[in-house]
Amino acid sequence: MTVAEPSRTLIAIGSGKGGVGKSTVSANLAIALARMGKKVGLIDADVYGPSQPTLLGTDAKPTAEDDRLIPVEAHGIRFLSLGQLVSPGHALAWRGPMATGALAKLVEADWGDAELLIVDLPPGTGDVQLSLIQRSRPAGAVIVSTPQDLSLIDARRAVDLFNKMSVPVLGIVENMATYVCPHCGEASHPFGTGGAEAAAAEMGVPFLGRLPLSMNIRESSDAGRPPAVDGGEDAQAFATIAAKLLEAVKH
Amino acid sequence: MTVAEPSRTLIAIGSGKGGVGKSTVSANLAIALARMGKKVGLIDADVYGPSQPTLLGTDAKPTAEDDRLIPVEAHGIRFLSLGQLVSPGHALAWRGPMATGALAKLVEADWGDAELLIVDLPPGTGDVQLSLIQRSRPAGAVIVSTPQDLSLIDARRAVDLFNKMSVPVLGIVENMATYVCPHCGEASHPFGTGGAEAAAAEMGVPFLGRLPLSMNIRESSDAGRPPAVDGGEDAQAFATIAAKLLEAVKH
Repeated sequence: MTVAEPSRTLIAIGSGKGGVGKSTVSANLAIALARMGKKVGLIDADVYGPSQPTLLGTDAKPTAEDDRLIPVEAHGIRFLSLGQLVSPGHALAWRGPMATGALAKLVEADWGDAELLIVDLPPGTGDVQLSLIQRSRPAGAVIVSTPQDLSLIDARRAVDLFNKMSVPVLGIVENMATYVCPHCGEASHPFGTGGAEAAAAEMGVPFLGRLPLSMNIRESSDAGRPPAVDGGEDAQAFATIAAKLLEAVKH
Repeated sequence: MTVAEPSRTLIAIGSGKGGVGKSTVSANLAIALARMGKKVGLIDADVYGPSQPTLLGTDAKPTAEDDRLIPVEAHGIRFLSLGQLVSPGHALAWRGPMATGALAKLVEADWGDAELLIVDLPPGTGDVQLSLIQRSRPAGAVIVSTPQDLSLIDARRAVDLFNKMSVPVLGIVENMATYVCPHCGEASHPFGTGGAEAAAAEMGVPFLGRLPLSMNIRESSDAGRPPAVDGGEDAQAFATIAAKLLEAVKH
């Protein structure tokens, strides 16, 4: 299996709860790492809500050679998504074994000279996560959470799963922490703030950084223009987290 | 099976994407329906992120009689949650068949004189949803989405799943549409607005209403005081949607 090659490092991006921005963080961290000179592949393993074709702005389908998928290029990275394998608007009404079978195809694809494989997991602690961990032994996992208690409760469950399966938790990213009013420019915290940092400290897990609830990130993401590409303020936030992640994975 | 009794109506609350407020909407609609005089049971079927014990503010465990679970009472409704069956902070690292087996126990519990059973589904279109639909034949489904494109793409997948399985989609609820700045009082739309209503029209599905991104709802929810209980502005928003839902389920 390709991922067994010692030169390739697999990093899982997970969350307990969905809708916390895990896919957006995965895409932009992958791009930020590529901009730092790394050769990066991105696997969209979110079987029931594959968002990467939308986030990366391409409907291109992967080709295949000798029964191995060839990833699609976008924004300086290569990626494969379960969303490339089904039509938009149609449900991926797959039971666990079907979903994990499809995921194996993505992991075993022809990733060429990619040094890092970022895997955007589905939220939660189910079949797909268990199978990925058992088969591919990720070098580490990053957990994304909003500062809200309800999100942190589930983030703790995700950390617990990775701990139990002996996958190092490289850190927690707090997303949607601060929102700047477009009318008055003042910051407020619709989902609270600081909760993920406090939870990380309590669990003895590194805190990788904080991202805002930003209309720019949301609109760019919906439009398939990842903000990590453009070099602006949001790009800097992703680059800072990517640098910390790279440091964590080396240790 | 209890749910086969003709006098009990099962309504599934789903979403394509997680983190859109599905559990908050489920809890508050259940309470709003109870305040309208209905006898309501709530099943928290979100296997990987069971939020109802937090949302309803009780850690009480269900008892059992003749191998049937007795639901816990809170805020005028009865409920059972997969979260009552595990310790907080521990991962529900269940594969599909285990999850659906646990869910069956909740559906087949002693729901007494409950006329309506609201089922808070996990996000997506996986094992739990397929099994619930096949075994319990819900009278209808409600889909919760934010106005964001990424959320609506997955909401369409959820509608497609229910359509394919001949479960009427009773309507779509748009959540987190408007945020009022606590500094200047002006409204803005971090996740956009109107997208879910437009998507509902396009899919030929009723639009049940719009809920704000409200710090009151978030804080009350984290604290286990569902806003539908207190009779304020947010309670009114849930009551309006509950009334439309009751109308839809009669037809």
